[in-house]
Amino acid sequence: MEPFNPKFDANGLVTAVVTHAGTGALLMVAHMDAAAIAATRETGLATFWSRSRQRLWVKGETSGHFLRVREIRVDCDQDAVQLIAAPEGPACHTGAASCFYRRLDGDGLVPA
Amino acid sequence: MEPFNPKFDANGLVTAVVTHAGTGALLMVAHMDAAAIAATRETGLATFWSRSRQRLWVKGETSGHFLRVREIRVDCDQDAVQLIAAPEGPACHTGAASCFYRRLDGDGLVPA
Repeated sequence: MEPFNPKFDANGLVTAVVTHAGTGALLMVAHMDAAAIAATRETGLATFWSRSRQRLWVKGETSGHFLRVREIRVDCDQDAVQLIAAPEGPACHTGAASCFYRRLDGDGLVPA
Repeated sequence: MEPFNPKFDANGLVTAVVTHAGTGALLMVAHMDAAAIAATRETGLATFWSRSRQRLWVKGETSGHFLRVREIRVDCDQDAVQLIAAPEGPACHTGAASCFYRRLDGDGLVPA
């Protein structure tokens, strides 16, 4: 069996993309270190490395809006992972279902 | 109108997530600098910054498997963009439709 061998960057991180287990929609992008991947696999709750706070961050730890991870995929060169998750509430801290709630229109942003 | 003001990292990049315009499926993750975003908007073809080759890279320039961008979205803190695109062929250089064609199973990877 092919080994899982994530290719961490100079900061020890891979990009993590969360998609909705039901609809397939893109929900959010964050970053994971080895400990975040291990915690996510152990608990089933999406756990990231917060670059701003420089600590592990269980998504939903303050809001209660956890992401229950159903499946983890990895891309061809193993520097990005996909978490297929069932969200318990809005994925975005703004209250939007997805962090990608705006689209470009000319030089500005409008609701997606 | 809210301005589009991407928050580039120390290397001048944002994360770019490509999803399928028809199915919504996650196709690939790459990186864009300001020039890649400008080129993508001008040509309608997904254009990235190749960190390995250190140059702009039009996805499909060698394979012919271009990604025709229908819409660009940005996340809440503007450090990631979503390209909603119609792929002209496999998105992955391996020939897979998506770069995320394997899932974790124990310590190994199996077909997703």
